[in-house]
Amino acid sequence: MLDVQSFAAGQWIAPDSGAREIASAITGDVIAQAGTSALDVQAMLGYARDVGGPALRKLTFHDRARMLKAVAMYLMERKQVLYDLSYDTGATLSDHKIDVDGGIGTMLVFASKGRREMPDGHVFLDGPPEQLGRTGAFMGRHICTPLQGVAVHINAFNFAVWGMLEKLAPTLLAGVPAIVKPATATCYVTEACVRMMLESGLLPEGSLQLVSGGLGDMLDHLGCQDAVAFTGSADTALKLRANPVLLENSVRFASEQDSLNASVLGTDVTPDTPEFELFVKEVQREMTAKAGQKCTAIRRIMVPDALIEPVIEALKGRLSKIAVGDPRLEDTRMGALVSASQKQDVLEKASLIQAEAEIVSGNMDEFTVKGADKNKGAFVPPMLFHCADPDAAVRVHDTEAFGPVSTIMPYRDLPHAIDLLNKGKGSLVASVITNNSDVAREITLGSATFHGRLYFNNRTSMAEATGHGAPLPHMVHGGPGRAGGGEELGGIRGVMHYMQRTAVQGSPDILSAISDQWVPGASEITHKDHPFTRTFNEVGLGETFNSPSREITLEDIETFAHFTGDTFYAHMDDEAAKANPFFPGRVAHGYLLLSFAAGLFVQPDPGPVLANTGLDNLRFMAPVAAGDSIRVRLTVKHKTPRNDEYGEVRWHVTLYNQDDAVAAEYELLTMNAYG
Amino acid sequence: MLDVQSFAAGQWIAPDSGAREIASAITGDVIAQAGTSALDVQAMLGYARDVGGPALRKLTFHDRARMLKAVAMYLMERKQVLYDLSYDTGATLSDHKIDVDGGIGTMLVFASKGRREMPDGHVFLDGPPEQLGRTGAFMGRHICTPLQGVAVHINAFNFAVWGMLEKLAPTLLAGVPAIVKPATATCYVTEACVRMMLESGLLPEGSLQLVSGGLGDMLDHLGCQDAVAFTGSADTALKLRANPVLLENSVRFASEQDSLNASVLGTDVTPDTPEFELFVKEVQREMTAKAGQKCTAIRRIMVPDALIEPVIEALKGRLSKIAVGDPRLEDTRMGALVSASQKQDVLEKASLIQAEAEIVSGNMDEFTVKGADKNKGAFVPPMLFHCADPDAAVRVHDTEAFGPVSTIMPYRDLPHAIDLLNKGKGSLVASVITNNSDVAREITLGSATFHGRLYFNNRTSMAEATGHGAPLPHMVHGGPGRAGGGEELGGIRGVMHYMQRTAVQGSPDILSAISDQWVPGASEITHKDHPFTRTFNEVGLGETFNSPSREITLEDIETFAHFTGDTFYAHMDDEAAKANPFFPGRVAHGYLLLSFAAGLFVQPDPGPVLANTGLDNLRFMAPVAAGDSIRVRLTVKHKTPRNDEYGEVRWHVTLYNQDDAVAAEYELLTMNAYG
Repeated sequence: MLDVQSFAAGQWIAPDSGAREIASAITGDVIAQAGTSALDVQAMLGYARDVGGPALRKLTFHDRARMLKAVAMYLMERKQVLYDLSYDTGATLSDHKIDVDGGIGTMLVFASKGRREMPDGHVFLDGPPEQLGRTGAFMGRHICTPLQGVAVHINAFNFAVWGMLEKLAPTLLAGVPAIVKPATATCYVTEACVRMMLESGLLPEGSLQLVSGGLGDMLDHLGCQDAVAFTGSADTALKLRANPVLLENSVRFASEQDSLNASVLGTDVTPDTPEFELFVKEVQREMTAKAGQKCTAIRRIMVPDALIEPVIEALKGRLSKIAVGDPRLEDTRMGALVSASQKQDVLEKASLIQAEAEIVSGNMDEFTVKGADKNKGAFVPPMLFHCADPDAAVRVHDTEAFGPVSTIMPYRDLPHAIDLLNKGKGSLVASVITNNSDVAREITLGSATFHGRLYFNNRTSMAEATGHGAPLPHMVHGGPGRAGGGEELGGIRGVMHYMQRTAVQGSPDILSAISDQWVPGASEITHKDHPFTRTFNEVGLGETFNSPSREITLEDIETFAHFTGDTFYAHMDDEAAKANPFFPGRVAHGYLLLSFAAGLFVQPDPGPVLANTGLDNLRFMAPVAAGDSIRVRLTVKHKTPRNDEYGEVRWHVTLYNQDDAVAAEYELLTMNAYG
Repeated sequence: MLDVQSFAAGQWIAPDSGAREIASAITGDVIAQAGTSALDVQAMLGYARDVGGPALRKLTFHDRARMLKAVAMYLMERKQVLYDLSYDTGATLSDHKIDVDGGIGTMLVFASKGRREMPDGHVFLDGPPEQLGRTGAFMGRHICTPLQGVAVHINAFNFAVWGMLEKLAPTLLAGVPAIVKPATATCYVTEACVRMMLESGLLPEGSLQLVSGGLGDMLDHLGCQDAVAFTGSADTALKLRANPVLLENSVRFASEQDSLNASVLGTDVTPDTPEFELFVKEVQREMTAKAGQKCTAIRRIMVPDALIEPVIEALKGRLSKIAVGDPRLEDTRMGALVSASQKQDVLEKASLIQAEAEIVSGNMDEFTVKGADKNKGAFVPPMLFHCADPDAAVRVHDTEAFGPVSTIMPYRDLPHAIDLLNKGKGSLVASVITNNSDVAREITLGSATFHGRLYFNNRTSMAEATGHGAPLPHMVHGGPGRAGGGEELGGIRGVMHYMQRTAVQGSPDILSAISDQWVPGASEITHKDHPFTRTFNEVGLGETFNSPSREITLEDIETFAHFTGDTFYAHMDDEAAKANPFFPGRVAHGYLLLSFAAGLFVQPDPGPVLANTGLDNLRFMAPVAAGDSIRVRLTVKHKTPRNDEYGEVRWHVTLYNQDDAVAAEYELLTMNAYG
């Protein structure tokens, strides 16, 4: 029997008399025990807050992103161990891949986004500066900094690895230590994964702890710098979120819970279009993957009246071919539910649904289980119900049987489909199989606000579509109402849940110092050498080059027009230009100004500036006519390392005319050698 | 006596036997009554959800922004009525301006941001598309759509107008109807303002209702499409947020409550620097404005050890000059608290503080009140406490006396100041008066995560600084922990609280149809006429122009270099260019490519395209050498009306080389006449 340990305040702690036994989903035999009555939750919180937090916050966002990548690679090499352990949870090899590879992949996406979309510093900027006074002497902007407490992650049994890593990756990237509490039923898989991460030596001390078993009174000790993220049942969620200490201290509580996810077959689909088969396949896959124990599984299937019979027939055909059995057998398509009690719960919920719907596929008495004892393991067949009157039904729209159980129902028209969708009162995801953009738009406007995710698929996207049920690290996961009102993932959005957004107001110099970005109006530093001769490491924020000025002649404008072919009338015809609301008469081309500006600021010789790679936020503010002159101010705004050889320098560029009015403003990107 | 009415389900409803009397803060006489036992909360919710919501959602974001502007202008013309009513709340004319003008100004900022930062459509986009497959046939992006329920706003007594409008503006801009419940003590001012808005006829029916008096069991009927925003005491907040229906349905609940806001005098300041006087002035103003009844008022004053005596002396001097009295008198600097019970509460809280701190200014027995009876009105003097040992103190850091009451305390060094700041366990705002950017940065990194706003001020910014206590519509307002964990305002961020963010996945065509933005990979529409000859109204999303191609010669590169002065070696010296990691040898200037591209796509004659006003997100993806050719694809990505004459067209531009590889990609902005 496995003794599943906890990792608390730097120590591995074995189960004791407070432990609970864990049975195999396949054989029903006890295979492990977990839980301890000796957990010192105050010590664990202190270890996270006083040891883990400060160590993580010393690192930059890029440091932490690199750390995540290293941890993910370390796990990738050891994933077979996790696969081997996972069979006893009832899962098949393809289920393991969703869990283990999916979790590692999520970590890799956060590692990559952390380096591409966050700065190599300690403060994340949310939005541009806001000028709050007349001259810009007082500015505002929003920053995000890591919470100084601990994240408590309470995970569901169904994804022992992904469920942990999808919460852990954004938390660690934010710079916040975590205490992970997996569901006991599958905690032996989570424990093995935590053990690997700790053994890797890649995580700072105190940044990761594990509670195998119960949390004790940990939540009663949380405060304004802590956060709780929960995935599981609505009942447990309600108990946790009503905790008086959490309420009193406004502790962040994100919940991802029951959800009656629906899939809609579009009104445009007929049995001979590719979308028909796509729909049937997707529904069958979502019903049976992980034996339906997915928070995103399709629970409600909505089909136009006329197609209800053909869809039921097609689904019955596919479902009857699903081989249920020991997941270690190669031809098993669906394993067991996680436990006998889960099986009982699913059957009870299914009987509630059956009061409003007729069962059309799946029979507890008749299905066969290969390679295992049907009565000892937690096996059930895929069960499809047909609800002929979904408007009168209640249970069908509010009962989540957390297994391979789904209900098909007819709809009359799109408003009716939208009404049925919204009867779920908030879901994680709804999908629509349609090849008609108008159908997609109508459903979006009528129903998007009830769902955390809307998934559309058709013949164009099906080769690359990632599946109704797959939460991707790039997209938010979570939903309103019944789904818990929480949000996770969504790229950097998911990192924000572990940071505090703070409005910062002050002088441009103060804002620049706080944000690691030069803000217009802040001090300009001049250096005897041209900034293009100075390396990435040498140039500092605010370092400024002021160019000489250059007159723009009518000949310049003519030459440029004929050379480039851009003979737009505003450059060529004084009278026509005057009739235009933007111009006083013939003016220089915007691209002429940009090109001359480069001529004014560029340093021609080989040096640390390797290339101009891009340009952002260019706005032409005042026209430049023949006889006017321009000069350029070039200031280092921000620096971001990109690889081992060079980093990106973002320059703030201002073009002035001879009266010091701003003719154009933009940001220039160059790649600079570190030196 | 004023009968303060409610506006429920389209009817004005007078107070009945369930009404409560309201006394003047100045005279103690009963001046009004409010409250009804006849409120049909289900009818009110239905009126909002079934009448107001659909009407608001039919409008675009720009329509609603224009509506907000019109309402604000309507109120502006009638603000004297609101001033006149407000004296009995105890407030002075300058307090009225904060409340009334501040509220109207907030509405105007949302009106302006709505048109500048949101689309003229029904779906707000959050972030760029994400490519989720290899070829881009399946993409993701995040959209925000209005909640389909109702926003219940429960406001505090201190800002009867601003408190309503700062919540109402983002709610209506989102497209969500509101039910406003002001605190009873000052609801006669709110009622007058609501009456004006309804009489204006500018708001769609059902979008605004008012509860003067108690809410009844309204919260017990809220669901996943509703939202509650609360401002007031922590006790009330806790009661409301523990409502089982709110918890069970995951109803959004934003709270802005007690906060022990602090102000820190920087370690760099000495009595002879301008920051010393600035600090003393700001503290005095925050203590006495609105008689200290501001959620953002300074409750804790932190001063370096050495300056504690001079700061106390300076503050005492300023506070002793504050004339307390009838706010209608011109030389009154501070009016009364809102009510006798509020006065009693403030004195009780002050006595808790007094157990840990010595009173150094303000004496209930000795202060004088001009023009009113000190014993009948709710007058108190400004009270300054000095806490010599703030590390040992508890009450000083957790007791909000909601009046002109503040405690000064010494600190040893910046880590000590940060520790004291964070003892507030979450606040709306902390301010730091410093002329040293390093001081600002150290406090930010140590303490930002405990505050919703950090306000820095010094000699540079003081002429334009908006004040420690002023929540601006541009900046988020709210704070973690004790401050309630909520967030309001912050520009469009504040609108998001009334919208659902949904991840949308699908083919480029589906995403384009949903988002009103052409997504790369979506269908391209070609039209026989050049798109530059077609008006803003005529050109459609996806309309595409494919240019002929043009060869780039070495002579072109030479000509461009000498004409512009940009003789960077990568364009001029083949050997040096080859040594650069980005280039195969001499390459064309990026600006040459942009200029030639314009030459290839521009239509030279006068037409609907008035000007090229900007360019965004330019990235050079592959170098172009002499002998290569380029061609351009120009596609309408998005359209935004800007004024009565023209709107902005955003074009997606791709430069291809002769092998159809992308050489550069960017977005071009033009202003186009509507036609």
